[in-house]
Order: sequence, then C-alpha cells, then structure tokens
Amino acid sequence: MEKIRAAVVGYGNIGKYVIEALEAAEDFEVAGVVRRASSLGSSLELKYPVVSSLEELGRVDVAILCTPSRLVEKSAEAALKLGISTVDSYDIHSGIADTRNRLDSIAKEHGAAALISAGWDPGSDSVVRALLEVCAPQGITYTNFGSGMSMGHTVAVKAIEGVKAALSMTIPVGTGIHRRMVYIELVEGYDFEQVAAAIKSDAYFVHDETHVIKVESVNALLDMGHGVNMVRKGVSGKTQNQRFEFNMSINNPALTSQILVAGARAILKQKAGAYTMIEIPIIDFLAGDRDQIIRRLV
Amino acid sequence: MEKIRAAVVGYGNIGKYVIEALEAAEDFEVAGVVRRASSLGSSLELKYPVVSSLEELGRVDVAILCTPSRLVEKSAEAALKLGISTVDSYDIHSGIADTRNRLDSIAKEHGAAALISAGWDPGSDSVVRALLEVCAPQGITYTNFGSGMSMGHTVAVKAIEGVKAALSMTIPVGTGIHRRMVYIELVEGYDFEQVAAAIKSDAYFVHDETHVIKVESVNALLDMGHGVNMVRKGVSGKTQNQRFEFNMSINNPALTSQILVAGARAILKQKAGAYTMIEIPIIDFLAGDRDQIIRRLV
Repeated sequence: MEKIRAAVVGYGNIGKYVIEALEAAEDFEVAGVVRRASSLGSSLELKYPVVSSLEELGRVDVAILCTPSRLVEKSAEAALKLGISTVDSYDIHSGIADTRNRLDSIAKEHGAAALISAGWDPGSDSVVRALLEVCAPQGITYTNFGSGMSMGHTVAVKAIEGVKAALSMTIPVGTGIHRRMVYIELVEGYDFEQVAAAIKSDAYFVHDETHVIKVESVNALLDMGHGVNMVRKGVSGKTQNQRFEFNMSINNPALTSQILVAGARAILKQKAGAYTMIEIPIIDFLAGDRDQIIRRLV
Repeated sequence: MEKIRAAVVGYGNIGKYVIEALEAAEDFEVAGVVRRASSLGSSLELKYPVVSSLEELGRVDVAILCTPSRLVEKSAEAALKLGISTVDSYDIHSGIADTRNRLDSIAKEHGAAALISAGWDPGSDSVVRALLEVCAPQGITYTNFGSGMSMGHTVAVKAIEGVKAALSMTIPVGTGIHRRMVYIELVEGYDFEQVAAAIKSDAYFVHDETHVIKVESVNALLDMGHGVNMVRKGVSGKTQNQRFEFNMSINNPALTSQILVAGARAILKQKAGAYTMIEIPIIDFLAGDRDQIIRRLV
C-alpha cells in the first residue's frame, strides 16, 4: 500500500514530536520539513530534507502545520493554494469557527481539505465534550486543565519588562476555575514587586487568582506533563443526575503530535473544505481496515 | 422548522424512555408506537397512535427500534424496505459487524440509512474506545462495567429450570474482569444447590467468578443504575505512559434511549447505507446550528 507523504511545517517542540509520531505510524512517510530560511542550518541532524517551502519537497499529500497558532492560518492558506491538504492544532478557542469558515472557502476553491484545531483541547477534548452533550443534552460540563504548563500564559509573562525567563502553570481548582502559578527569573536591576504587579494586571491574568514566585532557575521546573479532568452532570431524556467524567494525564506535545498525525490520515478521507474534529467520523482517524476496526472497537 | 417524525418500534423499558427523550427533544415529534398486535390493548394510556405496523403511521422519517437485540435485524429490514431509516441499540458485540454489513446492502437498495448499536456499549463507549486509540495507538484499554444489572445474563438465568425470578449483577474487579452476583427466587420444590450449579455451568457464567444467592424478592433489589470505568494506558508517537480514563454513573435505559434519539437525528444526515456510531461525525448527533455548536464545544 502506498504510504501517505506528510510534510512537517515548523520544527519546534511540536514538529519534533510529530516526526516521532510519523515514524511510529506504518502508513506514513516523512516527505520533509519546512522551516524559515534562517533556521535551515540548525536542522542538520535531521535525516529528512529540510527546505524553506513546500514546493521543494516533491509529492506531498498532507502538510502538518506545527507553527505557532497565530501563524497557522497563513501556513494553511499557502498549502491549500498548492492543493495540499492540511492539519493544525490552532488553539485560540475564540478564533476557531471563523478561521474554519475562512479556510473552508479557500480549501474548496483548490480541491483540498483542512482540519483545524486537532490537538487535545481544542481537539480530542472537543469530541468528548460533544459526546457528553449527545448523552445528556441538558446540564453543565466543566473542563478542568492541569496541573501543567500553559504555553500562552508563559509567552505573555515573558513579554513583560523585567522578566528574564518564565513558566506559568495552570492549576485546576474545580468547576472550570484555574489558579495561575507564575515562576520567573528577574532581569538584574528590576524590582520583583513591580514586575509581579505588572503580570497580575495583564489581560491573561487579571481575571484569575495569580501567584508570582521568583526562582533561581525556571529551567529546573520545566515538565511537559499536563492533564484534564472533564465532568458533566446532566439529563438524559427526562432522567436527572446522569454523571460522566473524562480524565487524562499526558505528555502535552506528544499527545498533540499524535492527534495531528491521526488528523492527517483523517483529512485525506474528506471532501474538499475545512473541518474541526467533531465534524469527522472517529474511524477516519484510525489506521487499518475499517471492518476490522469495527469488529475490534464497537 | 419541520420536526423529525419518529416511530417507536417496541414499547418495553427502552421504548418508554425513548418516548420521554423524544418529548424532551424540540426537533422531534412522535409519529406513533408500533407493537405486536397482541399487545395493542395494553398501551391505552399512550397519547400517541399505537399500531401493529409502520405503514399505519403516515409519514415516518425514522424508526427507533426498541425490540430485543435478536429481533432488531428483522425490524430494521422491514423498515428499510419501506425506505424508512432506522436506529437501534443492538448489543451483541460479536454480531455487530456482520449485521451492519447485511443491513448496508438492504439500506442502499432502498435509499435509506441504518445506525446500529447506538446505545452506550456498544455506542458512546465505542466512540471513546476509538478516540483513545487515536490518542495513543499502542497500548491496552480496559472496559470495566458496573456495578449494574446485566440484561443478557439475567435472561439467561431466568431460562434455567427451577428459577422463578432472577437478577444478575455485573461487578467490576478491574482490568476488564467481572464478577457475577446472581440473585434468584426458587420455584417451590427445587433444590437450591442444584439450580446454583446449573447457573454456574451455563455458557454465560462458566468463565466468570459467579455467586448465586437465594432471596425472598428479586423485585426489591432492582435498580436501573449502571456504570462504566474505561482505562487506557498507551503510547503517543514514541512517548510512553499516556493515561486516559472515562467514567460514568447513569440510569441505563435513560441513557440508551437518549443516544437512540440523538442517533435518529444523526442517521437522517447520512447517505444510504448502514453505520455504527464511530462512522458518523459526532456533530451530526446534536441538535441546533452547526456553526453555533462549533463555537460552543470545540
């Protein structure tokens, strides 16, 4: 059987784990890695072609976009315009539907398909959230994250003057409410109390209980573990008190990357257009014979 | 917006809860109930037409099959041949794929669609099992049931000579292994030890740890609560020890019926053919505007 040729666009933390997930998947082969021209020299350890644009890689069936969320739409557009389907883990919840709708037109115009927000939240958690509403349409779902590092919050702290290095941990306190534990190294000459006050008044933190702690080494605290505890109590038909819970404890970039690779498999089975994970049958994400999958999992 | 007209085929425990779930769903109306001719007189309390065949109900968009699993295929065939799409909660795991494949031809021939095994296991649990393999393709999933009443095992006990009434409870002991607690009332004149031995050597029980207990009233023990604890530990890409858990504690017929009604909504959005739940996008099971669902749940 011919393998799916996947290009990895971006070679940060996620890109590296995507290469691992592609190597572990028997139905894929790595077409190559696309990086900014200025970064090409630093990827010499890779055994795959490293280029600065998708066109240089020959046949590419799908592009797995591992760029930061704010660059995803531009990367997706570029690939779709070449007729190459895409998958990404765009994680800005408020922008998902509009991004999906804009990419939908572009994808259809070029006969390709785009899967957006295929990580774990948004992503696999979205599938669970939707499934729990199928099971109990009336009720409340709480998604509790962590404890684990928040990429978005960490970047926000790093942007504040006087911060040399930072880590923002998300701590669940129940019912979807989170505490922020922010660990920073201070640039010499800055006042800790003033920097801490600036962090707490930042838009990312102003609505949450936030604690800022000065440490000698942020690096010594880093751990890619993360987790979710999702809870729903609701009503099936007219029957109250139906209870559901989903938990996971995972390596964050490894899970994101695994779902991206499964998403690359799934998107190639869809008609032209843009999709989120809840719009695609779960079976399409799995490798192997469909009849065998049904016999094993249903 | 025109409502979906659903017929309820069979009016046992599940049929009654399906009526409740249809009444709670704003996009449905009850076309009527189909029962055996001999049972028509006992459904006089219903405010819907009660008839002995689907043809008597006027326009029917979808038939929700609430007959016992061994009668499901026949009921589905009859509806599909009228061009009416169907949904059922057929729960004999070893028969699902073949039943699906047989109904697939019939459905396609008559331009209708059939969703089979749309309960909670098989059903929503199957979606979770598939999703967990998407997240960690290598590893082991354990599905632990209960504690709760097993319909299949209870029926098997009732068929044994000397049993007047029975209840078989499924007790999870971990790693997908279950203990069977069987409560019976004895027919007068039968020897308890002999009946207990017959139960333990029945095919349903011979491989499990089974305890048989004589009680004065099985009825006093009945409770429709049930539950699941599903656990997967596996590998995402090349990263070990990814952990996932899904739990629920639910009223069994209420959840089955709610999923059947959501399935009735979903199957009408599919092309002709037969499907299991993992072959249909989750969003199709939900009521309401698709763009709004994406904004709310992804």
